[in-house]
Amino acid sequence: MQGLAASCKIVLVMFLLGLGLAGATADSRRRVVSSSPDEPCKKMTLYLHDILYNGVNNTANATAAPVTKPTDLSTSHWSNGTFFGMLVVFDDLVTEGTALPVGDKEPAARAQGFYFYDKKESYNAWFTFSLVFDSKAYKGTLNLMGADLMDDETRDLSIVGGTGDFFMARGIATIRTDATEGYFYFRLKMDTKLYECYV
Amino acid sequence: MQGLAASCKIVLVMFLLGLGLAGATADSRRRVVSSSPDEPCKKMTLYLHDILYNGVNNTANATAAPVTKPTDLSTSHWSNGTFFGMLVVFDDLVTEGTALPVGDKEPAARAQGFYFYDKKESYNAWFTFSLVFDSKAYKGTLNLMGADLMDDETRDLSIVGGTGDFFMARGIATIRTDATEGYFYFRLKMDTKLYECYV
Amino acid sequence: MQGLAASCKIVLVMFLLGLGLAGATADSRRRVVSSSPDEPCKKMTLYLHDILYNGVNNTANATAAPVTKPTDLSTSHWSNGTFFGMLVVFDDLVTEGTALPVGDKEPAARAQGFYFYDKKESYNAWFTFSLVFDSKAYKGTLNLMGADLMDDETRDLSIVGGTGDFFMARGIATIRTDATEGYFYFRLKMDTKLYECYV
Repeated sequence: MQGLAASCKIVLVMFLLGLGLAGATADSRRRVVSSSPDEPCKKMTLYLHDILYNGVNNTANATAAPVTKPTDLSTSHWSNGTFFGMLVVFDDLVTEGTALPVGDKEPAARAQGFYFYDKKESYNAWFTFSLVFDSKAYKGTLNLMGADLMDDETRDLSIVGGTGDFFMARGIATIRTDATEGYFYFRLKMDTKLYECYV
Repeated sequence: MQGLAASCKIVLVMFLLGLGLAGATADSRRRVVSSSPDEPCKKMTLYLHDILYNGVNNTANATAAPVTKPTDLSTSHWSNGTFFGMLVVFDDLVTEGTALPVGDKEPAARAQGFYFYDKKESYNAWFTFSLVFDSKAYKGTLNLMGADLMDDETRDLSIVGGTGDFFMARGIATIRTDATEGYFYFRLKMDTKLYECYV
Repeated sequence: MQGLAASCKIVLVMFLLGLGLAGATADSRRRVVSSSPDEPCKKMTLYLHDILYNGVNNTANATAAPVTKPTDLSTSHWSNGTFFGMLVVFDDLVTEGTALPVGDKEPAARAQGFYFYDKKESYNAWFTFSLVFDSKAYKGTLNLMGADLMDDETRDLSIVGGTGDFFMARGIATIRTDATEGYFYFRLKMDTKLYECYV
């Protein structure tokens, strides 16, 4: 078995044990757990586009809207505050490249969830959402949560579960702010790495 | 070991390694990981009843209430909107059959958490909650999260953790809208399948 | 291998398989899964301090603020209600002892996330947050969620993921209300136990 691990660089934990159990109609996927942080069992680079409703004239394009107001804890410290307590619900577009989809082109996924700002002294957020895939490539979801430590160039969210093609997945999404336009648009680059997969 | 797996259809990953470690007072549970999506280590069918506060006359029965209002992103598109941004906190009853408990009968569990609507174009939600068990059968919690893609007949939430009798559990809850009554009641059928258990 | 398990009391699932795979620059951590609920692969006792904004004069010290109001479901039952539906965003201090940090002393971690009250009949809450470590001892995050069943002396939250030094961690945080001061301060003792680690 050491030879197998050395050649694959991924340890097929139960593969040998599971051989021959699956019938013709059964789901034949088997669990794979990465042997090291350097070796995810799956990797995808994705871009999340957050177009925030400005309250005036972008309802057609906006995919996110605040549902609570910043609290006084925020506004009492900075002239415009740090949005402490503002919670934003989103159904954002997710793409494989940096550009938004043109015309009828389908996005790679949607990101459905929310974030909120949670720091008095600077911009800092917390996210939880599902990546919802419904394309030729993938059907299923990945569920994420974690601190978006905006003072850091990159920050890691936990991928805590998955469904469909991502059945029972776990991993890490390393995010980076890739572009911003004023208050009402940001794009995150997400390096999505799974360390537990069923393949 | 291939013979063992073939007869149990569940792979006891660490059972052989863990034999003899637990003393008389120790917790003797051992970890079980399913070998295939077809073979959960535990299955339960449960019904979640959401009785939404109507703001008028159902405080005695209601178990859920909106804590934010739908945003303009919702109301600008449909005559009555799609509730985009409305977040509902709940402490819902969970039962083994479809009926609500009668009299003093205890529910199978409570579901404590929240959901919110997150789509401009149609009804679509996102859930996170704990199933809280405090019955003769079970004591402990299961923690869930994921997209409730209401356009799909069934949709999968991730079970990302558990406590007590469900210590360190992971799995999938497949939900289906089983009944609705106007805006203020729905019942979800939840096929709850665990693929990582301690038994 | 039975001898190994018996001596370590922790099962090194993939250690033997992974030997020799990591180069000089590679991340050499390997996955460890506990063999029993009695034997976490890591343990930490931490204290979470929640200083709630009182809306008047504690903006300098407050680390948490309500962003939604309790609903009528709460106030209709008790004279002062059970805060049903009140959601609080926090960036709380986390310490190793019970005392708040003095002067420039850094906390052990921050806890960033939110809780809300979800019961009509009594005080009961639901939490999700990240423990954010940025100290000499640790850099990284742990992500938690679960029901805070306030009628119970201790209650268990799920640790569903981790990053950095806590890469891919899972576990349980057993919390206990350690102190309260009126409505605007509480301290939780958190016994944080990991059962899945990379070491």
